[in-house]
Amino acid sequence: SSHATGYNSNRILAPYSVYKGKAAFSLTPSLPTFTKLHSGAVVVDRRGSIMVIFMHAIGDRKYDWENRQRFALSATEVGSLLTMGPQDSCEFFHDPSIKSSNAGQVRKSLSIKPHANSNGYFMNLTVVNNLLNTKEFFSVPVTAAEFAVMKTACSFALPHIMGWDKMTHQQSTGGTVGLQS
Amino acid sequence: SSHATGYNSNRILAPYSVYKGKAAFSLTPSLPTFTKLHSGAVVVDRRGSIMVIFMHAIGDRKYDWENRQRFALSATEVGSLLTMGPQDSCEFFHDPSIKSSNAGQVRKSLSIKPHANSNGYFMNLTVVNNLLNTKEFFSVPVTAAEFAVMKTACSFALPHIMGWDKMTHQQSTGGTVGLQS
Amino acid sequence: SSHATGYNSNRILAPYSVYKGKAAFSLTPSLPTFTKLHSGAVVVDRRGSIMVIFMHAIGDRKYDWENRQRFALSATEVGSLLTMGPQDSCEFFHDPSIKSSNAGQVRKSLSIKPHANSNGYFMNLTVVNNLLNTKEFFSVPVTAAEFAVMKTACSFALPHIMGWDKMTHQQSTGGTVGLQS
Amino acid sequence: SSHATGYNSNRILAPYSVYKGKAAFSLTPSLPTFTKLHSGAVVVDRRGSIMVIFMHAIGDRKYDWENRQRFALSATEVGSLLTMGPQDSCEFFHDPSIKSSNAGQVRKSLSIKPHANSNGYFMNLTVVNNLLNTKEFFSVPVTAAEFAVMKTACSFALPHIMGWDKMTHQQSTGGTVGLQS
Repeated sequence: SSHATGYNSNRILAPYSVYKGKAAFSLTPSLPTFTKLHSGAVVVDRRGSIMVIFMHAIGDRKYDWENRQRFALSATEVGSLLTMGPQDSCEFFHDPSIKSSNAGQVRKSLSIKPHANSNGYFMNLTVVNNLLNTKEFFSVPVTAAEFAVMKTACSFALPHIMGWDKMTHQQSTGGTVGLQS
Repeated sequence: SSHATGYNSNRILAPYSVYKGKAAFSLTPSLPTFTKLHSGAVVVDRRGSIMVIFMHAIGDRKYDWENRQRFALSATEVGSLLTMGPQDSCEFFHDPSIKSSNAGQVRKSLSIKPHANSNGYFMNLTVVNNLLNTKEFFSVPVTAAEFAVMKTACSFALPHIMGWDKMTHQQSTGGTVGLQS
Repeated sequence: SSHATGYNSNRILAPYSVYKGKAAFSLTPSLPTFTKLHSGAVVVDRRGSIMVIFMHAIGDRKYDWENRQRFALSATEVGSLLTMGPQDSCEFFHDPSIKSSNAGQVRKSLSIKPHANSNGYFMNLTVVNNLLNTKEFFSVPVTAAEFAVMKTACSFALPHIMGWDKMTHQQSTGGTVGLQS
Repeated sequence: SSHATGYNSNRILAPYSVYKGKAAFSLTPSLPTFTKLHSGAVVVDRRGSIMVIFMHAIGDRKYDWENRQRFALSATEVGSLLTMGPQDSCEFFHDPSIKSSNAGQVRKSLSIKPHANSNGYFMNLTVVNNLLNTKEFFSVPVTAAEFAVMKTACSFALPHIMGWDKMTHQQSTGGTVGLQS
């Protein structure tokens, strides 16, 4: 059956995308993975995140998917986004090579800054790669309405990327599990 | 079985309706459709929306269903509605014939404006049809309580019309999918 | 099997109860019922509500279940509750015999009023029964924390009492329903 | 099958943990248990909670799991947390031996206090044990972003620890249950 062909063959993709003149970005929830311990308990193996993908515009409504850059927002970074008021800003720093021999060679920073003349924001990504000697910068203006969609969708997704949906549903699905008879 | 007769025969209808003296409107979530690519990935084919349907009153508690007008709010337009404070207003413009030879012939605009004497709103729809040489206008007063229901229901529905519910649930339903064993 | 014994034999009861010195009340979501039309479409038959049940205290931690009074909050009345700020109040009037020969004989009013000396509220129910020549009054103080639970739980339940959860899930459960193949 | 080995062997664990220099705490939803009455109705047997577990740091990124202390937040205490503004504080007192001969011998208090120099909080737990003649104190600083995650996750979990998710889903899962045919 198609289920036997594995996870990737049935992957559902529904990113929330904001396409603007010079660049675009999209948000996609990335669920945690779990691992079963000898005790039988199932614990989080790799944490979930909200994956943000930036692309440069390379023509009229065309974006450079090949050279996209990624930034995975952790649960706590999503919490920062959720608390932002109209004048607030925030900035996150990631090192994709942390704990490897290349630590410090690539530095990524994602910042969200309020727009001076509206109640929207700028989503900015800077990627400095000392190995390739490159520096990339993406900046996408986000309207207040688009940011409201981001907040509502991220608020919905947060318990899922934390794995809390699995904890709250585990007793529901097992029939009499958790019920005394 | 009844399942074999297809989707429409089992459609569940539960619009949120606001009936007032001169006109009425209802909100219904419309889910996205998906298509399977050769790679096996499933992507959004037609975006979801919140469908708003307006009707004129044609008698005591009777409304003109035959001549209803529709306006499909996109995810970002729903985001606008969700961010509205008591004094805010918003307006959206749609062309149902965009990208066809009739582009520009029918113009629809939906506006939400604060009520001067209360903390409610007016939901207004204008439809100008140059092909039929008609202009229709609907206006329905909405109380703060009704608007709160609209916001709560649209906030609930937003991840579903974006397809995010399918992304967050796909690993839950496949047994060991996403689990290492 | 136990499933064959019908709905009521498996009913799950988990009211949110606030017990105070002179009276108590509880909240329970009551789901809509649906009916299938000849077209195959399934529509709401009886609307859902949040059922509020009041009881008088008749001893130490004992409440008079036999003489309880009920008040079913509609979706829009729940919307009123959800929008209440710390100084707001609201009041709803119901006639349980409306459209019958006893219309007007029993009048129920539920009011929520801010507490003068705290940021809590009073939940009050008045039932005037002209047939029995009785008037009952219940008043239960609610802390801000208890009211926050009520708001969060009612916000969760609102899409369910509206039937929107069934609309947003109908395409998810049917395998390829809503998918093009 | 693995299902036959019982609930604990398939327990999914996904606490939200905040690790700081001197101590750490984690939050985990604990679902209610239900019991079936002779009438067939299923009622809450043991209430759900959000379990907070504190540990002292005993080295670099090492925490003392053996001597952890627990504090189970009730639905109403979760309501307090959800209503907290940036300058608010709250405190809860529990006696784990209440209604036993050791009542009053162990006193636990959990307080959440705003941080003087930021818009974060301190999560503090004090455990006074007169039987062992011990007094323990844990204090963990929480950023505004971490607190936003706690609020969003607790808001998601609240209907589940109250058992309201089971009430709102019971009619959905039974096919024609709640439907007239």
